[in-house]
Amino acid sequence: MTHMDTRLAGYFDYASSTPIDSNVLKGMLPFMQTEFYNPSSLYSASNTAKDAVDTSRREIAGILGVRQTEVIFTSGCTEANNLAIQGIMAANPGCKVVFSATEHESVRQIAMRYDHRVAYVGEDGLIDIDALANLIDDNVVLVSIIYINNETGVIQPLRKIAKLIAKIRVSRGKSGRPLYLHTDAAQAPNTHTIVRSALGVDLMSLNGGKVYGPKGVGCLFIDSEVDILPVNCGGGQERGIRSGTENTPAIVGFADALRRATDGREQEAARLSGLHDVLLIGLKDLGCTVITKNSPKSASIVSIILPKIDSETAVYKLDKLGVYVSSGSACHAKTGEKSHVLTAIGLSDEESMSTVRISLGRATTTLSIKKLLASIEQVLA
Amino acid sequence: MTHMDTRLAGYFDYASSTPIDSNVLKGMLPFMQTEFYNPSSLYSASNTAKDAVDTSRREIAGILGVRQTEVIFTSGCTEANNLAIQGIMAANPGCKVVFSATEHESVRQIAMRYDHRVAYVGEDGLIDIDALANLIDDNVVLVSIIYINNETGVIQPLRKIAKLIAKIRVSRGKSGRPLYLHTDAAQAPNTHTIVRSALGVDLMSLNGGKVYGPKGVGCLFIDSEVDILPVNCGGGQERGIRSGTENTPAIVGFADALRRATDGREQEAARLSGLHDVLLIGLKDLGCTVITKNSPKSASIVSIILPKIDSETAVYKLDKLGVYVSSGSACHAKTGEKSHVLTAIGLSDEESMSTVRISLGRATTTLSIKKLLASIEQVLA
Repeated sequence: MTHMDTRLAGYFDYASSTPIDSNVLKGMLPFMQTEFYNPSSLYSASNTAKDAVDTSRREIAGILGVRQTEVIFTSGCTEANNLAIQGIMAANPGCKVVFSATEHESVRQIAMRYDHRVAYVGEDGLIDIDALANLIDDNVVLVSIIYINNETGVIQPLRKIAKLIAKIRVSRGKSGRPLYLHTDAAQAPNTHTIVRSALGVDLMSLNGGKVYGPKGVGCLFIDSEVDILPVNCGGGQERGIRSGTENTPAIVGFADALRRATDGREQEAARLSGLHDVLLIGLKDLGCTVITKNSPKSASIVSIILPKIDSETAVYKLDKLGVYVSSGSACHAKTGEKSHVLTAIGLSDEESMSTVRISLGRATTTLSIKKLLASIEQVLA
Repeated sequence: MTHMDTRLAGYFDYASSTPIDSNVLKGMLPFMQTEFYNPSSLYSASNTAKDAVDTSRREIAGILGVRQTEVIFTSGCTEANNLAIQGIMAANPGCKVVFSATEHESVRQIAMRYDHRVAYVGEDGLIDIDALANLIDDNVVLVSIIYINNETGVIQPLRKIAKLIAKIRVSRGKSGRPLYLHTDAAQAPNTHTIVRSALGVDLMSLNGGKVYGPKGVGCLFIDSEVDILPVNCGGGQERGIRSGTENTPAIVGFADALRRATDGREQEAARLSGLHDVLLIGLKDLGCTVITKNSPKSASIVSIILPKIDSETAVYKLDKLGVYVSSGSACHAKTGEKSHVLTAIGLSDEESMSTVRISLGRATTTLSIKKLLASIEQVLA
């Protein structure tokens, strides 16, 4: 990690934004300079840009174990989630969407525009698959379940959900409505597999800015069998599913970052797991309650209820000590609204308002965890 | 212009993509490196990013002469156009949209999803304002007219259209439906004013990648009186109108590029106008027909009908000579479809298929115009 500054040593908000890998940035620069040509142009000057977009798409397809044509580049995970939901619901007018009570706002807000059912989660943050099955009536065409929750780190059993979906699909027969499983996998690639066959999903959203790549880019994997309509219409880029001039440097950086995250995943997951254990011991000593502690969880996201202090005050006090954590999801940090995720897993308003999220990443070390714990201790004193 | 290479000397496709200004790129780099923090975060580490987004928004608002809160950042002009049309039509269900026959696909394709009327243009490429007036019945809430056409360079009389809209608005009274004027101004900032009061529009789309700024960023100016619904829902960024983590480096680069384009506009427009005249004399000598030659036009876009050669062959032959022009809009260059713009201004299929677009920009010189003319001569020989 280059471009290290003192702030990074106290940074515990990787789930909100990751610093770009300096090698990723280096690989992007030619496409911000000499190779600025429009990849859709016919002349040879654009060949390098065109090839770079093709190579990036192939690389991501390879990582996911899907076809090249099934990877659609977007401006980020929010757009990918919106495209998945709006695109499928537009192709199936009058049908229903089911999503979990702990989805990211970029799934939840848009899904609520349609006829929808919410799959509740337990206090462990996990979906009850039998309850989910009961929600999927003949009119449901899409189920959207977040892979790793951005606030709790809880990992949903996608594989099991995919089996349920497959069973229902078979029972509907060839004349029945389609049924697809979408997942928002933004928080997954640094620590967990994103191989499609391991998850069983039909659509998957990813984000460059969460994998040490550039902001403003992401993708939606869409199985070739899925019937979907575009949201952004225009020049017909991305096989007509997402128009707009290809953002070559961002696409190149995203693919490179995703490859690096995938290559380093096992090692980084193990390293973070070790740091996570140190963190949990320390937090227990400080009297902090770790949310969904016993559920299958990503080591990189830990949300805690602080005793006797509201989260906003804690964030500010930690800030003064050079420690940066999130009070709920950064996306609604500004509005100060209560987190629907924390409410969904049964936290009281009071508990919810005293919750902060700690997220770990590449610059996190034992030393920085110690600094974090000492700072929390000071704030609670 | 740094990062000059030999290809740039033969580049005549600025309307499709502009090379980034090296100073703009320099200003973006800190936000791709140390200032990677999420601008929506509460802690002080994100202040520099947050301030940069605010400053950029203020800068663009200043250039347009509008309020800061009226500038919504998007992933480009395609998204801005889609947001304008989808957002307003969603806020006014069952209503009608009117657009010109020479709109960019990113307006046309999405507008056609709604109840719509097409305002035809003459052979001069200009809208007939009386005919337009007849299309605007009480159910029309949005009129979308491109400012400078991306294929012909024709400048629509926005000010006059705005006056018509204002008159109709008054006649509807307070209880009538709203009526808004949107323009796609992507091709304007390098050579023409984009001051809102000079144009009289209620919404305006702009693009970073056409003003020597980064790709993957643009904005939509939306007058504060306009009732609009979001297309991308989620974390509530951009006042809830366009969710998704702010792409700080791209936003910073876009604002900087737009400021530089605005500051240098008069001088550059005059310079391009001189080159344009040289080009036109040469093209006449070669027997090429300049489309919409006598209309009010941007000096930077010249479309020509080549005698006795189809445009695709010409593009390939010019390519071999190191000259890069477009066969119609780059956006549908790949599909090889006939341009709806050229058809709209009365070109026959044969003429349309022999049309290439030449667009001039910052690296264009008298010398490069000479090279272009000599190459066209060779291709026609």
